[in-house]
Amino acid sequence: MYDIIVIGAGPAGLSAALYASRAGANVAVIEAGAPGGKLNLTAEIENYPGIKSKSGPDLAFEMYEQGLSYGAELLMAEVTGIEDKGDHKVVHTDSGVYESRAVIIGTGTKERLMNIPGEAEMTGRGISYCAVCDGPFFKGKEVVVVGGGNSAIEEAIYLASVVEHVHVVMRRDVFRADQYLVDKAKANDKITFHFKQKPYEVIIEDDKVTGLRLESAVDGTLSDLPVAAIFPFIGLDPITDFVKDLGIVNDYGYIDVDSNMETSVKGIFAVGDVRSKTLRQVVTAANDGAIAGQYIANALL
Amino acid sequence: MYDIIVIGAGPAGLSAALYASRAGANVAVIEAGAPGGKLNLTAEIENYPGIKSKSGPDLAFEMYEQGLSYGAELLMAEVTGIEDKGDHKVVHTDSGVYESRAVIIGTGTKERLMNIPGEAEMTGRGISYCAVCDGPFFKGKEVVVVGGGNSAIEEAIYLASVVEHVHVVMRRDVFRADQYLVDKAKANDKITFHFKQKPYEVIIEDDKVTGLRLESAVDGTLSDLPVAAIFPFIGLDPITDFVKDLGIVNDYGYIDVDSNMETSVKGIFAVGDVRSKTLRQVVTAANDGAIAGQYIANALL
Repeated sequence: MYDIIVIGAGPAGLSAALYASRAGANVAVIEAGAPGGKLNLTAEIENYPGIKSKSGPDLAFEMYEQGLSYGAELLMAEVTGIEDKGDHKVVHTDSGVYESRAVIIGTGTKERLMNIPGEAEMTGRGISYCAVCDGPFFKGKEVVVVGGGNSAIEEAIYLASVVEHVHVVMRRDVFRADQYLVDKAKANDKITFHFKQKPYEVIIEDDKVTGLRLESAVDGTLSDLPVAAIFPFIGLDPITDFVKDLGIVNDYGYIDVDSNMETSVKGIFAVGDVRSKTLRQVVTAANDGAIAGQYIANALL
Repeated sequence: MYDIIVIGAGPAGLSAALYASRAGANVAVIEAGAPGGKLNLTAEIENYPGIKSKSGPDLAFEMYEQGLSYGAELLMAEVTGIEDKGDHKVVHTDSGVYESRAVIIGTGTKERLMNIPGEAEMTGRGISYCAVCDGPFFKGKEVVVVGGGNSAIEEAIYLASVVEHVHVVMRRDVFRADQYLVDKAKANDKITFHFKQKPYEVIIEDDKVTGLRLESAVDGTLSDLPVAAIFPFIGLDPITDFVKDLGIVNDYGYIDVDSNMETSVKGIFAVGDVRSKTLRQVVTAANDGAIAGQYIANALL
């Protein structure tokens, strides 16, 4: 029986493992993919306080080595469910069952894809899911935001303060975003809307994004938008399906926690992007992990 | 008029400056001492996620350079008060008056000193105010905690899980700490209490802490406690005197904030150690600054 099982080896989970194991807890981190989470999708990080500039995968590797350096174990498996047995929890995976006194969920979120050619290969290199992270790399350039919901319009407004010009591509001519955001974006002359257009293909030259090919949703004609970067905001899904039956997931699929990161189920915690919060960044994820890890270790030891 | 004035250039304030200025806000950071705050008092940091090991002053310098790299200005001054004028704030200092639309307070806390010989020179090098940060450096060694309040006893229990043995020195034989903490500490055979003893002098050999000389509070006799590190927890005061009249300071002297780090006075925010929180660490301070900086920039721009 472990003291703590952390699900997900992104910045939140690795920070939890660091704090908890450094405080003496016996910790296992379960991860299905590469440790580091979304860091692995980001070319360059320059807004993690204390590190002026580092590649996402390099920061991921440093967090991974540090997170396991006080004895936490990494188990490669896909978690399929958590059973709450009161004073202990049973974690079911595709390669066995593990038990612990507390569980920290740090599974993060998954971006909905455009599903077009060129998307997979250019992700992290001209296709970005984080305007705050990557917008400043495209100062003086034109970029495109795909989507018409709140996050798309918010990010377009933010990007307009950073880059030369922002194009917004929407499948329909109706916004899902709140009216005040739409008004704010429409009043900004650095933002141009392209309605009833769908992403068709990423235009790549010399291994760089140089544009987005659009397909008219009305008559199927193709047109090219020359841009240096593509920011798709067509939706983000928290990875919480495997805990739906615990009653800790809110209407949006995220997990609500208290100030110690504990959910409504005693002994089950959530940290990082998977929890309800206003700013999803590496530093806010690391913060959550530190708080949960230290809190649980103090309570158990 | 600045968009944002940040008071205090510790990890919280510098992170706020980074996020706010990177998002396009016009930011001034006002600091009376060396940028980096308490990092400057810490020899080695090994629990800041993503940085396996770095000296405190080095991390401070990196945060300082990064925090100002998007145009934020550093003003050297001591802030004496903040006037709330509704849509803007007036910040009074010992070298002039500055105005801004929002203010972020990140002044941190100040440790109460033992006021004994050797204390100042060995701070950060064998005298530590942070057991979570520095305890693991003294694995296999004996250390002493000075104090009998909640934080002293909590830290003694934590240290006992990390080091060889923990001595606790108290002026009286009555605990100010909660009974359950006292019971927990008394039950731990790695903790020894020394009642009615006062710290008299730090014993230093070869530029290292090798002990703490004690003076009996009963008859003044001196005795030596051989330890590798001294952890004084005789009190911590948030630096909030200059805002006492704003009604944002709670009974303990700390500042209460909402999830965006905003105080009860609109446009005045608090981040890092100076706010009410459970875990005071570099990463939790940086988290607060990022949240406040990005939130205000989004709201203003």
